[in-house]
Amino acid sequence: MTQRGTLSVAVIGTGRMGADHVRRINEVTAGARVAAVVDVDGERAKSVAAGVEGCTAYTEPAAAMADADVDAVLIASPGPAHEAALLAAFERDLPVLCEKPLTPDAASALRILEAEQKLGHRRVQVGFMRRYDAEYVKLKALLDSGQLGRPLMLHNRHRNAASPPGFTDAMLINDSVVHEMDVTRWLLGQEITAVTVLRPTPTGNAPEGLSDPQFVVFETGGGALVDVEIYVNCGFGYQVQAEAVCEYGTARIGDGHAMVTHMAGRWGGTVAQDYVERFAQAYDHEVQAWVDATRRGEVTGPSVWDGYAAAAVCEAGVRAQSEGRRTEVELIDRPALYA
Amino acid sequence: MTQRGTLSVAVIGTGRMGADHVRRINEVTAGARVAAVVDVDGERAKSVAAGVEGCTAYTEPAAAMADADVDAVLIASPGPAHEAALLAAFERDLPVLCEKPLTPDAASALRILEAEQKLGHRRVQVGFMRRYDAEYVKLKALLDSGQLGRPLMLHNRHRNAASPPGFTDAMLINDSVVHEMDVTRWLLGQEITAVTVLRPTPTGNAPEGLSDPQFVVFETGGGALVDVEIYVNCGFGYQVQAEAVCEYGTARIGDGHAMVTHMAGRWGGTVAQDYVERFAQAYDHEVQAWVDATRRGEVTGPSVWDGYAAAAVCEAGVRAQSEGRRTEVELIDRPALYA
Amino acid sequence: MTQRGTLSVAVIGTGRMGADHVRRINEVTAGARVAAVVDVDGERAKSVAAGVEGCTAYTEPAAAMADADVDAVLIASPGPAHEAALLAAFERDLPVLCEKPLTPDAASALRILEAEQKLGHRRVQVGFMRRYDAEYVKLKALLDSGQLGRPLMLHNRHRNAASPPGFTDAMLINDSVVHEMDVTRWLLGQEITAVTVLRPTPTGNAPEGLSDPQFVVFETGGGALVDVEIYVNCGFGYQVQAEAVCEYGTARIGDGHAMVTHMAGRWGGTVAQDYVERFAQAYDHEVQAWVDATRRGEVTGPSVWDGYAAAAVCEAGVRAQSEGRRTEVELIDRPALYA
Amino acid sequence: MTQRGTLSVAVIGTGRMGADHVRRINEVTAGARVAAVVDVDGERAKSVAAGVEGCTAYTEPAAAMADADVDAVLIASPGPAHEAALLAAFERDLPVLCEKPLTPDAASALRILEAEQKLGHRRVQVGFMRRYDAEYVKLKALLDSGQLGRPLMLHNRHRNAASPPGFTDAMLINDSVVHEMDVTRWLLGQEITAVTVLRPTPTGNAPEGLSDPQFVVFETGGGALVDVEIYVNCGFGYQVQAEAVCEYGTARIGDGHAMVTHMAGRWGGTVAQDYVERFAQAYDHEVQAWVDATRRGEVTGPSVWDGYAAAAVCEAGVRAQSEGRRTEVELIDRPALYA
Repeated sequence: MTQRGTLSVAVIGTGRMGADHVRRINEVTAGARVAAVVDVDGERAKSVAAGVEGCTAYTEPAAAMADADVDAVLIASPGPAHEAALLAAFERDLPVLCEKPLTPDAASALRILEAEQKLGHRRVQVGFMRRYDAEYVKLKALLDSGQLGRPLMLHNRHRNAASPPGFTDAMLINDSVVHEMDVTRWLLGQEITAVTVLRPTPTGNAPEGLSDPQFVVFETGGGALVDVEIYVNCGFGYQVQAEAVCEYGTARIGDGHAMVTHMAGRWGGTVAQDYVERFAQAYDHEVQAWVDATRRGEVTGPSVWDGYAAAAVCEAGVRAQSEGRRTEVELIDRPALYA
Repeated sequence: MTQRGTLSVAVIGTGRMGADHVRRINEVTAGARVAAVVDVDGERAKSVAAGVEGCTAYTEPAAAMADADVDAVLIASPGPAHEAALLAAFERDLPVLCEKPLTPDAASALRILEAEQKLGHRRVQVGFMRRYDAEYVKLKALLDSGQLGRPLMLHNRHRNAASPPGFTDAMLINDSVVHEMDVTRWLLGQEITAVTVLRPTPTGNAPEGLSDPQFVVFETGGGALVDVEIYVNCGFGYQVQAEAVCEYGTARIGDGHAMVTHMAGRWGGTVAQDYVERFAQAYDHEVQAWVDATRRGEVTGPSVWDGYAAAAVCEAGVRAQSEGRRTEVELIDRPALYA
Repeated sequence: MTQRGTLSVAVIGTGRMGADHVRRINEVTAGARVAAVVDVDGERAKSVAAGVEGCTAYTEPAAAMADADVDAVLIASPGPAHEAALLAAFERDLPVLCEKPLTPDAASALRILEAEQKLGHRRVQVGFMRRYDAEYVKLKALLDSGQLGRPLMLHNRHRNAASPPGFTDAMLINDSVVHEMDVTRWLLGQEITAVTVLRPTPTGNAPEGLSDPQFVVFETGGGALVDVEIYVNCGFGYQVQAEAVCEYGTARIGDGHAMVTHMAGRWGGTVAQDYVERFAQAYDHEVQAWVDATRRGEVTGPSVWDGYAAAAVCEAGVRAQSEGRRTEVELIDRPALYA
Repeated sequence: MTQRGTLSVAVIGTGRMGADHVRRINEVTAGARVAAVVDVDGERAKSVAAGVEGCTAYTEPAAAMADADVDAVLIASPGPAHEAALLAAFERDLPVLCEKPLTPDAASALRILEAEQKLGHRRVQVGFMRRYDAEYVKLKALLDSGQLGRPLMLHNRHRNAASPPGFTDAMLINDSVVHEMDVTRWLLGQEITAVTVLRPTPTGNAPEGLSDPQFVVFETGGGALVDVEIYVNCGFGYQVQAEAVCEYGTARIGDGHAMVTHMAGRWGGTVAQDYVERFAQAYDHEVQAWVDATRRGEVTGPSVWDGYAAAAVCEAGVRAQSEGRRTEVELIDRPALYA
């Protein structure tokens, strides 16, 4: 692979997210192509490969990575399969974009952290795509500019129209609030040190066994206070908002006012119905940024450290949730590779 | 009447607007009471008077004004009755709040203008209540501050949910756009010198014979350009907006975002359904301002000159509308009393 | 006093708030006049009385209430003087509008609660003026309509540009958050059962000894969760927002978008600089509502029970704040008079 | 060129716009590469080509089109050079994306219209990039859905912070308002039949000889009325807004509320400073849409007919502007190829 050449990507996992990344690389991303797809379901892999010129189907990640035509790996398989795929990529020293979660728990994330350190250089970008959303990027730039002074509080709203079948209290933390964990760490540049989870009486629309909404409070190493309303059966749509309250002012994102109508006695607009609508461009930018950095021979974006830290905060969050009390987060010291 | 005493008001006309002013003076206005009501329909006058302590019913404006208990006059009878009532008030030198229009045409307005000049001092405040609306007041203050530089254009929207039965093209000018005529003159401090009326294909909701919406363009003595969308069957509510475009920026009023909801896939709020909802406080402030000024022995607010100028612009507007071409406005020189 | 007669009010206390109420009753309120003013500083009382026709100055509340010309009492003296003034008014069975706090602590509030019950009917309206703010009234009406289903959470922001000299952590609860306590109880129709106070690292603009901002969490008897950001040195202005999160949607008030400008690279508007600007009309409506109800022989609005409950929640809040832990609120059973 | 292969593009013109398209195709667009660049300034062409792998520099469009490696042509040279480049592309039957204007006047546009018809199929997409802006696309979809009924009026604002040196009254029409001409024709699906240009007294910030702002009114074949405020020295930023007023309601785009801040007594956000910031994604989508359609063997988007119609309306507009009166637009009948 030369710096200017087209990046040939092996996509591991061809479920909903994997198939969407195949489409994205084919139709949206400049400078990349899908050279291989992998799925334990060989038929599904073949069917996806058939739609892409010069794309080979595999059932084993290691086999795809051994393909001489493959320059880089995008992991979109289920979380429990990530560790093996990452280690296989490390063996061939291939650049990786790994969908979140890095791995399903802090212990396994720690093993990946150690493996990448043994490699001696960063190879992995973790798929926290909100860092590539134009509004979050603007908020980050404003906070970093210092115009508003130090951030003191961060209020977050994270709402889904309805939860998918089988959604549990733990998934509320691990699949949903994990985004606010990463956003908090990234926007503030501080680790999360403690988590508290509060629960109002659930909505009548919550499925049996799910306590929805919940209200999660983070404390950070720099003394900021972060609250997250997570409400996955709000009924009206998908909405992600963040408001930073700082020493000299506040900044809020997530209102999305692209078109305003007046009709039938009301003014206003539509609310996005899912994350695909709200974050489509963030996914596009994330993959493009990964392709661009990889073609330059660099690794940027959320690191394995970020994936590990999120896993550790999730574990504390699930414990805080089930035990009903403030829970401290345990993190190892940050290795030099991620300084 | 001492400056501090309660102002005793005779209300001429007890139709919808008159009855509302009786209620307003009784229940909302500080320092005033209704001492007399007048209506050609004596039964209606009696019925309104019966609900107010110490209030006498009359069928003749002059008789009410002769009542020793009457300090001031509020004229809310139909427009054609205004001239006689104004002249009667001038005979007793009583302060008057006269609902718009001052009189139905420029010729009669000119007679009032001359009569008040003969009196030697201003006695009349004309009921252009938008000058008392908090948003227009803010816009006026901003323009007068000079922060935005000179106003170059003024874009206006004037929308009603539906027109009342019998509404005509001429009423579109005389009853509706007349407000933008006064607002233009007041905000810019310039006379209107020409009017053009343009007509798109009407909405299917327009009643037979009414060309709705229309688009009216004013030119002013200072070279500003003013456009007014008048649309009285817009269906969704009552909406009045104004956007001043100036040398250093713009300012817009009329969005009214008091409460924002998210439900059923939409964000937004309600649109006012009529002028009572939108301008209730403007009416309250207008009458309070009149009472306060009157108790201080002063006359403030829109003058007979403003009433006359509006009538002259209306006449040009109706001609421009029916003849389909730009029409110049003819005004006498401004008398010293209104300098 | 007949139902239709003008209400003659004695205003107790002629400091900033008392003097403003004197002005309000004189210039804004329909159907009322100031008949007496009281201040321990006799010169100040005389000076205020001199500006009002037919108004007598006193230094003792009881003396003013003995004045045959006095129909009703407005208490705007410092909190510690409220108990004696209320008991004096009860002796003469006079209607009272008592500025918040009802009294400075729960024990004294309980004594007033008992005294009013002995009287056998309600005589006191407590000055929680947000209940008269047009935006809060709209939010209350929407919640009561049931359109959004049951309220699950209420997010509040309460920001001041800068705190007055001598402001303490306890005042943050007793003077500022007390408004959200009342608003919570009123909007949700539920008592507050527990309070938690969290503290991020303070802003560099906080005066020595003040922990600003703070984040207060209420739990309610009906299982709702309420959070309040209280930030009294936010620098940019005065801002009060409330967002109700319900089963079928959300509703937010407090954005106040009356005029939008575009200039110098920015769009937007001004932020109110203090509560006088933001809540001027709420104060006007509060006093008018009290005058109207009193003239009808009724007592409406926030009751002594509301004043007592606020005092009890404040005590729990200050304890939660100083001890750094969740604190339960102790309330007596609600007496039948306030059912 | 197979349908799936990478599209090899010759970019004609390497000035500001051409160089930006080279960057776009290299870094943003999926499925395309720059195979050749052309500039009369051979050094500039070579310098641009040097930065792109496998790209050859030419000084003649025809020479680049003769390059066997070239599949398609993007014309970004100055308007007067377009006709020759288009005819050269027609000779080789190459697909073309031609920046606006198609050609500098209606007569030359008519020649292109005839040449393409002789070819027998569409080959040209004209660069009216607003049709690819997400907000305009939403507005178009809403209008086409019929939810709002028939569009009656379209209010447009088109503002620049400052005009470039040498900007003239005619350029106000030909370079700026031409966008609203195309948007009007596209959104309403109607031809423009007459143009009127009104001029308020210019801003003090207008350069010598430029009458700025101006107010342009279009009438359409379907009876809609369209107004355009064009103001190229508004000082505060770049702003493009459109409000469709329809039978059942209105829809407005162009407010762009991505992040709201509160600081220093104001709420609000930033205004884009130029069209690159405001329409960056529209350009990206436009080129991607052209590449995608071309790879599928199709021609979509604004046609030569749209380019010709815009040129004809521009000519009427400039005449209306200089002669100060309503001017009718002359169009030939629409050829079958563009039905």
